[in-house]
Amino acid sequence: MDAAHSVGGATNHEGRSHRKTWLWGGIDLGGTKIEVVVVDAAGRVLGRSRRPTPRVGTPGDVVQAMYGALEEAAKGAGTLPRHLAGVGVGAPGSVDADAGTLASVSNVGQGWTEPYPIAGDLADLSRTRVVLGNDVQVAVAAEYRLGAGKPYRSVLGVWWGTGVGGGLVLDGKPWRGRGAAGEIGHMVVKPGGARCGCGRRGCMEAYAGRGCLERKARKAVRRGEKTRLFDWMEKRGRDRLTSSVWLKALEEQDLLATRLIQRAIRMLGAGIASAINVLDVDAVVLGGGLGTRLGPVYADRIHEAMRPHLFLPERQPPVKVAALGELSGAIGAALLAEPLMK
Amino acid sequence: MDAAHSVGGATNHEGRSHRKTWLWGGIDLGGTKIEVVVVDAAGRVLGRSRRPTPRVGTPGDVVQAMYGALEEAAKGAGTLPRHLAGVGVGAPGSVDADAGTLASVSNVGQGWTEPYPIAGDLADLSRTRVVLGNDVQVAVAAEYRLGAGKPYRSVLGVWWGTGVGGGLVLDGKPWRGRGAAGEIGHMVVKPGGARCGCGRRGCMEAYAGRGCLERKARKAVRRGEKTRLFDWMEKRGRDRLTSSVWLKALEEQDLLATRLIQRAIRMLGAGIASAINVLDVDAVVLGGGLGTRLGPVYADRIHEAMRPHLFLPERQPPVKVAALGELSGAIGAALLAEPLMK
Repeated sequence: MDAAHSVGGATNHEGRSHRKTWLWGGIDLGGTKIEVVVVDAAGRVLGRSRRPTPRVGTPGDVVQAMYGALEEAAKGAGTLPRHLAGVGVGAPGSVDADAGTLASVSNVGQGWTEPYPIAGDLADLSRTRVVLGNDVQVAVAAEYRLGAGKPYRSVLGVWWGTGVGGGLVLDGKPWRGRGAAGEIGHMVVKPGGARCGCGRRGCMEAYAGRGCLERKARKAVRRGEKTRLFDWMEKRGRDRLTSSVWLKALEEQDLLATRLIQRAIRMLGAGIASAINVLDVDAVVLGGGLGTRLGPVYADRIHEAMRPHLFLPERQPPVKVAALGELSGAIGAALLAEPLMK
Repeated sequence: MDAAHSVGGATNHEGRSHRKTWLWGGIDLGGTKIEVVVVDAAGRVLGRSRRPTPRVGTPGDVVQAMYGALEEAAKGAGTLPRHLAGVGVGAPGSVDADAGTLASVSNVGQGWTEPYPIAGDLADLSRTRVVLGNDVQVAVAAEYRLGAGKPYRSVLGVWWGTGVGGGLVLDGKPWRGRGAAGEIGHMVVKPGGARCGCGRRGCMEAYAGRGCLERKARKAVRRGEKTRLFDWMEKRGRDRLTSSVWLKALEEQDLLATRLIQRAIRMLGAGIASAINVLDVDAVVLGGGLGTRLGPVYADRIHEAMRPHLFLPERQPPVKVAALGELSGAIGAALLAEPLMK
C-alpha cells in the first residue's frame, strides 16, 4: 500500500507492534444491504464491498456480517481492518453515540429493541476504534462535504427511501438538536391523514415513504385496481417494490404508480417547503433509494411542488440529487471516524 | 442619571462634545403600537413609552412617531436619544439589516412596498447609531437571553398574534438562515386548506393567526352564527378582535370563539410538533399578543396538541410563555444595538 498512508511503523512509541494507516472504514447498515467503503483523508474510496443484511439472526450475527464486509473492503484497499485508523458506522434506529449502542431497530436482522453494543463488538473484532452515528445524518454530512451540498453553507438533506429521513447542516456544522433532529418524514402534512409506519397519522412519510407506497399499492390491487408494479417486481426476483421497480413503472406510465408517486411528490413539496420556511437554508439535497433512483427529473418535480407553499418563492433553494449515490451513507460513516475530515 | 452609566465626559478623546451613556434604546414597531424601552447593559428597563402606530401617513411619519416615543423613554431614563449608545428597531415586513431599510410593510401607517431607509432617518433624528432587525427574531432573542428561554441552549419561539411568527436560537446563536428563517406560521398544516393572509393555502397562520380568526368569526356571523365576540369588542371601544376580547370570550365559553381557538390550537400543535421533529430543540417559547394573553393554560393545551405528532413523545420539549410580556420585542431590539449583550 501507499507509504503516504502509513501512520507509525512496525513498532510505535507504546512499544506495541502495529501498522496503522491514514485510512478509515465506513459502514452503512441498511435494512436491505450492508455497504462498506475504505477511504483516505480526502474521502477517496480505495476499497468497497457490499453484502445483504442478514434477514434472520441476532445483533451479533449482524456485527459478524459487517465485519466480513469490512475485511473485504479493507483488502480492496490493500490493508486489514486492524490497520484502519478508525471505523464509522451509520445505522438506522436509535443510536447512542457515546455508549456505542443501537436500539429500536426494526428491519435489520430480526430487529431488536434493547440497546446493543454494536460499536464495542465491532471494535473487538476489528481491533480498531469504532464510532456510531445516525445513517441519514452521516449521509447528509458526506453530501455536504464531498457531494451535492459542497457549494453551500447550510443544507437540508431529504432521504427518500423506505422511509423519509432527513439531516441538517447549518452554517457548516451538523445540527442534531438533542440527538434526534432531522425527522422530516414525520412532519405532519395532513392532520388525521394516512397512517404512517411510525403509528401516527398524516406524516409526510405516510404518503411518500416506499414502505407506505407499497402498502397502498397492495391495498389498491386487493380492491381490484390494475397495475403492473408487482409483475415487474417478480420479474426482478424481488419480494418488495424496490426503487427500480417504481422507476420502471413510472417510465411505463403505470397508472397506479404514477398516481401514488404524484401524491408523494405533492406531500414532499408541502413538507419540504414548510421546513424551508422555518430554516431558510441554501439548498435541499435529495438522497435515499427513491431520491437517487428517480433522479433529477423527479427532484425538479419536488422543486415545483414546493413552490406554492414557500413564503419567499422568489428565493427558492435548489433541490439537488445526492452526488455520491448509494455510497453517501458509507462515506459519511467513514467521515464520522475521521476527525481530520471534520 | 447614574454616573456608572456614563461613557466619556463633556469632551471625549476625539475632542467633540458629547455625553454618551451605557444605555440603549429598543423600539418594537408593531401594526397597532410602537413600544419603546431604554435599557442598561444588563437588560434592565430604565425608561419606557408607548404610542399608537400612525394609521395614516408616510414612512417618514412613522419614523417621527418612533422618534417621539424614543425621546419620551429616554427622558424616563434621565437621558436624551443622542446620548444613547445605540438604538435597535424590531420591525415587521422585509428587513434589510445591512442597508437599514424596511420594505413590504402591510399594516404600519398606510403600508409601503419599496425599501425605506428607516435606520438612516431615525439615526439623523436621534444622532446615534440605529440598527434594524426582524421584530419576532429580536423578541425571541430577548426571551432567550433574559426571559423564558434562559434555562435552554436552543429554543423555538412561536409568536402567536395577528399573524404567527417565529424565531430560532440554536446552540446559543440566533438562526436566521438566509435572513428569513422562522416563518413557522407558513408551515403547511393542510395542503389546499384555508386561505392565509399571505395568499397561500393551508398555512398554520390561516387557522391560528388573530387576523384569520377574526375573518372567520365575521364570516360565521354573516352566516347567522351567534357570538358575543363583537359585543365585547365594541364594549372595549375597539374595531378589531384584540387578544383580550378573545380571552374574555373564552372565559365566557362563547361557542364560536371556543371552536375557533380549539381549531387554532390543534393546528398549532401539528405545526409546532413538525418543527420539533425537524429541529429537536430544548424548548418552545410562546409569545405574541394571543400567546401571552391566553397564557400558561393555553400553552399547556398547545403542548397537549403537539403530543400526537411528536416523533419522540417521551422527550417532548416544554412550551413556556414569554416572560418579558409585551416588552420582549422592544427589549430584544435594544439587545440588537448592544454588542456587549450578545
